[in-house]
Amino acid sequence: MAPAPPPFPHPRPLSKVFLLSVLPIAAWFILRPTLSPVPPLPGLLTSVGFSLLAFLATIYLVPALGPTFVKANLKGRDLLKTYDTPIPESQGLVCASVYILCLILFIPFAFSDALFPPVDAGKPQDGISVLEFPHHQLSMYLSSILSILMATMLGFLDDVFDIRWRHKLPIPIVASIPLLMVYFAEQGNTSIAVPRPVRFILGNLINLGPLYYLYMSLLSTFTTNSINILAGLNGVEASQALIIAISVALNDVLYLPFPLNFHLPLHLLGNRAEIEFGGTWSAGMAYGSKELVERHLFSLYFMLPMVGVCAGFLYHNWYPARAFPGDTLCYFTGMAFAVVGIQGHFSKTLALFFAPQIFNFVLSCPQLFGLMPNPRHRVPRLDPRTNLLHPSHTPFPHPPSKLSTLVLHTLSLLGLTQLTLHPKSGMIMEATNLTILNALLVRLGPMREERLVRVVVAVQVAGSVVAFVIRYGLAGMVYDGDRR
Amino acid sequence: MAPAPPPFPHPRPLSKVFLLSVLPIAAWFILRPTLSPVPPLPGLLTSVGFSLLAFLATIYLVPALGPTFVKANLKGRDLLKTYDTPIPESQGLVCASVYILCLILFIPFAFSDALFPPVDAGKPQDGISVLEFPHHQLSMYLSSILSILMATMLGFLDDVFDIRWRHKLPIPIVASIPLLMVYFAEQGNTSIAVPRPVRFILGNLINLGPLYYLYMSLLSTFTTNSINILAGLNGVEASQALIIAISVALNDVLYLPFPLNFHLPLHLLGNRAEIEFGGTWSAGMAYGSKELVERHLFSLYFMLPMVGVCAGFLYHNWYPARAFPGDTLCYFTGMAFAVVGIQGHFSKTLALFFAPQIFNFVLSCPQLFGLMPNPRHRVPRLDPRTNLLHPSHTPFPHPPSKLSTLVLHTLSLLGLTQLTLHPKSGMIMEATNLTILNALLVRLGPMREERLVRVVVAVQVAGSVVAFVIRYGLAGMVYDGDRR
Repeated sequence: MAPAPPPFPHPRPLSKVFLLSVLPIAAWFILRPTLSPVPPLPGLLTSVGFSLLAFLATIYLVPALGPTFVKANLKGRDLLKTYDTPIPESQGLVCASVYILCLILFIPFAFSDALFPPVDAGKPQDGISVLEFPHHQLSMYLSSILSILMATMLGFLDDVFDIRWRHKLPIPIVASIPLLMVYFAEQGNTSIAVPRPVRFILGNLINLGPLYYLYMSLLSTFTTNSINILAGLNGVEASQALIIAISVALNDVLYLPFPLNFHLPLHLLGNRAEIEFGGTWSAGMAYGSKELVERHLFSLYFMLPMVGVCAGFLYHNWYPARAFPGDTLCYFTGMAFAVVGIQGHFSKTLALFFAPQIFNFVLSCPQLFGLMPNPRHRVPRLDPRTNLLHPSHTPFPHPPSKLSTLVLHTLSLLGLTQLTLHPKSGMIMEATNLTILNALLVRLGPMREERLVRVVVAVQVAGSVVAFVIRYGLAGMVYDGDRR
Repeated sequence: MAPAPPPFPHPRPLSKVFLLSVLPIAAWFILRPTLSPVPPLPGLLTSVGFSLLAFLATIYLVPALGPTFVKANLKGRDLLKTYDTPIPESQGLVCASVYILCLILFIPFAFSDALFPPVDAGKPQDGISVLEFPHHQLSMYLSSILSILMATMLGFLDDVFDIRWRHKLPIPIVASIPLLMVYFAEQGNTSIAVPRPVRFILGNLINLGPLYYLYMSLLSTFTTNSINILAGLNGVEASQALIIAISVALNDVLYLPFPLNFHLPLHLLGNRAEIEFGGTWSAGMAYGSKELVERHLFSLYFMLPMVGVCAGFLYHNWYPARAFPGDTLCYFTGMAFAVVGIQGHFSKTLALFFAPQIFNFVLSCPQLFGLMPNPRHRVPRLDPRTNLLHPSHTPFPHPPSKLSTLVLHTLSLLGLTQLTLHPKSGMIMEATNLTILNALLVRLGPMREERLVRVVVAVQVAGSVVAFVIRYGLAGMVYDGDRR
């Protein structure tokens, strides 16, 4: 007997009691810093409050604006379903709008220390402290928002105008221009730390100069497009963004000055550098460096609302999806990750959290670079009778080259693709598409869409755990201390 | 015999020779500041070069992207034409994109003085002059771009989603948030100069405090919506923006430190304050004030590319239009004007350049505030036989109130509307719609669309001339010196 078809995508119901109970919590986080005694890191509390509000706004607005999107012809059919109901598309725009508005309204709070210095600080209260204002950080903050807003805009234009693939590629570069321009105008640091084994050749620091700008724009291109190409299942884009945002936020929290003391058994992970510090983290991993604390606070201010909007959106985007993210979501989240990686100077750590995306990109390379035909859609194929997903195949119209044959046979040996060989000549006639989704189906067998999404989520979470192990365990062997 | 119908709107031809001859001029303006000896105000030369490039990009891209807009369902019928050919709509988006990209790429040039200090300045060249970098101005510049980008985005969303009138009104307020937030975070000046006659009560300066923020957000609401409601004819939105941009730019030029000496017979305009300075303007009207020069340079950096994109767009938007601006153009140009008025601290001078828009708004008030029915479109009516425009009428479904009757009879006496009275009771049955366009048709009689556009352009130019007379003539009696 065939399993029952998935339910018709009416908007997912919202529990008013739940939503209304989050509201006072958000209000407390926002109001608490205004009460005396002012807690340490008041901006962080406000940011948590704003993120809760962003969560509420997204979870409420996505279904509320659905019909408006459908009416404006921003709608799509779910390719992996048996029904044809139009689903609102590009609703990542709602997330992006809430996110950016949140970041902008947060500006005075991010700089509350400078604006409202504590009364007991013993400074003369003459009302004007413009000279002490961190203008440099404000420019950084503004250029970040500007880049994210440009990415949103360009993502939405992509959704409306359906821009061709080769015109799409430079979009993140264009969106990263404000970031790079301000970095340049501020004469930002373009040096990177050299790994220990090659220091005897290159020295401790190497100045990349203009190459650093290339590196930054490539980073944004990568973070943006890598989320965009690992797509096609309900909830897969938003959950990637959510997990990466949580991982970055957790990493940031490690650097905050906590009032409590605690030990982590870091030596178990093979780290040497940490042990020397005795393991007492009374000031987080920043070890009293104001600059490190500020960088990671900056990153938290961007990541917490991201967690809020992604969680709110995922509620409606989860299988069976009632809302699609469109390119807009991939672009604005990808750009936000690039922004914190660049401005917070932890792009290498960030890249570790993108491990599944990097794997997916490397796996896709033979198709992206012409060793194998590349169809428009590479999502798995739905068998409507069993409601199971199977890996999708792409046939070779011409016999593959020797290089292609070699690469594909290697991937097949690794269990990442399935080849259909000519019964007589043994020539490759077709192969499953080279994406992590199809590879998972090849390895684990056909499964239902919701199960595959859970597997992808598990892979991403596992990736983040491994990333933390590498960053705080193995990296100590290659880099000393906590540079980036 | 009826006049020949207007030509079918094929894209307006572009003269390649003309375009290619502008290119080297633009290149010269951009490259000149890199050559020694560095001219005074190198950023201004570069800005002129960028604006020429913006002009070229707009004039080229608008027709090139027309079919893409039509395909994405961004198209409209020209209401005042006899043909039904769909015209690309919302192409203000092209202008806005070129404009914003231009502003962003300009960032390093705007701060070139700080980045590349002249070699003969005698300062130690240690390569790092971060301490001297004008971070404050960079934040100002970035928040301005952010507000303009938000206005563009919201304008485009309005075009795509066709937002309702009452939801539209707060759009400019939302878009002005970055500006206000940064103004607040920077603890910007919230005082205004008090006019002389009331100084004995209020003092020389009055601190408006939070009211100043209200004033700024209302200013952006006004500049944005006032261009949006004076619309409906081919080229009328873009030419308003062009003329205002040129006027603001001319006003800015007055404050630049020119190397040449010249006299202006200002006393003829009734000014007293200027005469005391002897009329020699060797340093412009800034009289050596670095701050004033910087403010007006800032304004020029925003106005010159605006002139470029509006001129480029107007070529295709002029009667008979091959491209429509959409709300996007009105929003981004309006926000740009508000930005320079606020950041440059000359909002009162700016308001003078909006005299026709203010007149149009005041005239529209009875319709906006319910004293007279307000139909969706208030554009003049085309008589297809004669191809002449007549004032459009709105009938009163119910007898008008006494207040409405009084107001309308007053306006009719002033020749600003035409009333149709009931032959027996003398009650107002219908009135021409209360816009400057209909008022011009009431006063000057029916005319062809292209003639009416020219009349509107003439009114706007005349308004700017009067504005200069008031600003530099009469204002001297109410304010002393050149405050704002």
